[in-house]
Amino acid sequence: MGFKNYQLFSPEYYMTEALREAQKALDRDEVPVGAVIVCNKTIIARAHNLTETLHDVTAHAEMQAFTAAAGYLGGKYLNECTLFVTLEPCVMCAGAAFWTRLGGMIYGASDEKRGYTLTGASLLHPGTQVASGILAAESRQLLQEFFKRKRT
Amino acid sequence: MGFKNYQLFSPEYYMTEALREAQKALDRDEVPVGAVIVCNKTIIARAHNLTETLHDVTAHAEMQAFTAAAGYLGGKYLNECTLFVTLEPCVMCAGAAFWTRLGGMIYGASDEKRGYTLTGASLLHPGTQVASGILAAESRQLLQEFFKRKRT
Repeated sequence: MGFKNYQLFSPEYYMTEALREAQKALDRDEVPVGAVIVCNKTIIARAHNLTETLHDVTAHAEMQAFTAAAGYLGGKYLNECTLFVTLEPCVMCAGAAFWTRLGGMIYGASDEKRGYTLTGASLLHPGTQVASGILAAESRQLLQEFFKRKRT
Repeated sequence: MGFKNYQLFSPEYYMTEALREAQKALDRDEVPVGAVIVCNKTIIARAHNLTETLHDVTAHAEMQAFTAAAGYLGGKYLNECTLFVTLEPCVMCAGAAFWTRLGGMIYGASDEKRGYTLTGASLLHPGTQVASGILAAESRQLLQEFFKRKRT
């Protein structure tokens, strides 16, 4: 799948980088979800879902990105960072985002089965700004491609 | 802290092993929480909180134990396993437990600040049997010791 070019530093620009990560997951036959973490306009972490490859249900793109970003910064908190993730995080990832005190979270498509918003509970840190819907169609297209392959 | 001996294979026996892990966390100046995962009466994973050591907020005892247990079993699911953890899991760990399809979860002390039950939402897998309060006093004693040291 080719990705459009967007203006540097725009939300769509960073989400496209997350989509490139999701594409890497798809290429490995993993549910295609990708994430990047941005701090001072710079991408400091990139990750994609690896649950099948690692036989580890905790290896979601976001979890790996949190760990990598904290490792890069040498601290635990990501309050000056923004997570861009192609699919709405699950409860586990929202709970992890809480602990990181994440500054911002922007997700693409909503997850109508396992999205954290479905719980109706306030799971994120009060300091986390949330936006959604950025390049949601592109995210869904990758997911649909994955499930189409699984069925055939 | 010395631990009492309990009957082999009793819940208190396994929880004592989780308390030993929590003690290791305390010895490293980490919030003392420990966990073991039991499958067919055998402990297949042991872990303690390492968030400070690893600068990683996702390095909770439970998360590490899930990853280790799945690695040991060579599969993703822990539906025939029971997690023994000294403190009530947080939202992140409850969300991870969901993905593992955990068979049983037994925790010691309740976490009155960040326990997953405080959300009021149903976060665990419907197949997960839950019990709590096992050696809760011993778990709280370790936590109080940690916070006492922090204050002095």
